[in-house]
Amino acid sequence: MNDAASLAALDHSDPRAMRRAIRDGRFTGFTNLVARGHVQGNLIAVPAVHADDFEAYARANPEALPLLGRGEPGRRDMPGIADDLDIARDTGGYMVFRDGELVDTPRDASAHWRDDLVPFVIGCSFSFEALLQRAGVRLRHLEEGDVSAMYETTRETVPVGPFGGKLIVSMRALTPADAIRATLVSARHPGFHGAPVSLGLPEDLGIASLEDSYGGHGMKRVLPGELPVFWACGATGQNALRAARLPLAITHYKAHMVITDLPLPEDMPS
Amino acid sequence: MNDAASLAALDHSDPRAMRRAIRDGRFTGFTNLVARGHVQGNLIAVPAVHADDFEAYARANPEALPLLGRGEPGRRDMPGIADDLDIARDTGGYMVFRDGELVDTPRDASAHWRDDLVPFVIGCSFSFEALLQRAGVRLRHLEEGDVSAMYETTRETVPVGPFGGKLIVSMRALTPADAIRATLVSARHPGFHGAPVSLGLPEDLGIASLEDSYGGHGMKRVLPGELPVFWACGATGQNALRAARLPLAITHYKAHMVITDLPLPEDMPS
Repeated sequence: MNDAASLAALDHSDPRAMRRAIRDGRFTGFTNLVARGHVQGNLIAVPAVHADDFEAYARANPEALPLLGRGEPGRRDMPGIADDLDIARDTGGYMVFRDGELVDTPRDASAHWRDDLVPFVIGCSFSFEALLQRAGVRLRHLEEGDVSAMYETTRETVPVGPFGGKLIVSMRALTPADAIRATLVSARHPGFHGAPVSLGLPEDLGIASLEDSYGGHGMKRVLPGELPVFWACGATGQNALRAARLPLAITHYKAHMVITDLPLPEDMPS
Repeated sequence: MNDAASLAALDHSDPRAMRRAIRDGRFTGFTNLVARGHVQGNLIAVPAVHADDFEAYARANPEALPLLGRGEPGRRDMPGIADDLDIARDTGGYMVFRDGELVDTPRDASAHWRDDLVPFVIGCSFSFEALLQRAGVRLRHLEEGDVSAMYETTRETVPVGPFGGKLIVSMRALTPADAIRATLVSARHPGFHGAPVSLGLPEDLGIASLEDSYGGHGMKRVLPGELPVFWACGATGQNALRAARLPLAITHYKAHMVITDLPLPEDMPS
């Protein structure tokens, strides 16, 4: 089977098939529109000596860092969340930090992996975006083929050990009715950041301009008749990691997430 | 006991005592800060020939008109909601409409009551305001000794028989965090209007200016750092009643509500 035929045959809703396709380089896109029936997560891997502090930091800031799983030192599988995971290869995009500096963004992180790295998987808004859409919420950034914009706020997270820093949020532009619906639906899913932390007034979070997104990415435009709605974001963890200047840390690369086998929960009718 | 001593001795948290004090003219204020552990409601009384249509109208528009009780023709008690109610005297303020025109605003409606009138009690935002405050939401209009402002929207209610017309909403100015908390708390109480119908953008409801409140009443100012949050309002029923031009209809007068013996539900932690 040639590459085109292989990609055409790929079941984009199957998490196992998607992980394989990513590992083999057959799928290289963002993961936000694939395997939507299953939970996706942020990856953060730190040296074992810092793992307990990082876990405590996540538990102290559960809106930003809802913990879905913690791996064993040096192991690249996580049997609790996926049956055949190779976490050093299956997200399709990585950021490698040394002493807080980004030194590489490989598609495969095997060459950087170390026997003392402990991977964490953190709940991600891609999962609640699927739930929001099921509930009838219009997500314009997806229609425009974009991801949500992220912003650095002036709110401090609760620091633990070397980890701390500002809360990062993701933003979606929604009509008032959808903002209300999205608040009710997301609040029922603390594992994917829960309810919004703010809405309507960017200045409430110290965001001076919606044009100024974190990393410059994402859909920043809010149209007439829409409100910006802000959720705590797992990128808060990457931010804390950089500030901690660990000798080595590895995370997923933007919008290339860990695809798990955990089924997305059914939402109650709102 | 003279009047001052009698009022000082009055237990403002006791619904039965408050109804008696209102009936005797010892208490003449708004009811939004008394008997806060018990449900309050809007009163709408219509001739029996229109009662089934009005009930159907309420059931078709449950956000605005959550039905708490329906009385019997000509009876001024409602044993299901209060043990000793005289609904023609116990709210302390009434509006009497003939052919859709307001003809009287008595403190006691006995002189206008008729043997074929059927009273309806409709859930009211005073009840959810108590729940919001218990949940830590700051309600500035109460701090300022005011009631919430109401607005006529451009949204049509679902018409039934002679009843129809625009949705009326109440507005509270809240911080973003309180707007989110208030959305989550109020959504759990459909009997008191449920979740907001809109927020942040008055134009979403066709409200051109927040200065232009329905009847001119209430706290209209939204301060920097606050959002206007809008809930469907029982005044929608009064509006429909006037438009229906019934030969006779009697309602409570603004902020003088039916105080019931129904305990306010405990709210779940948010």
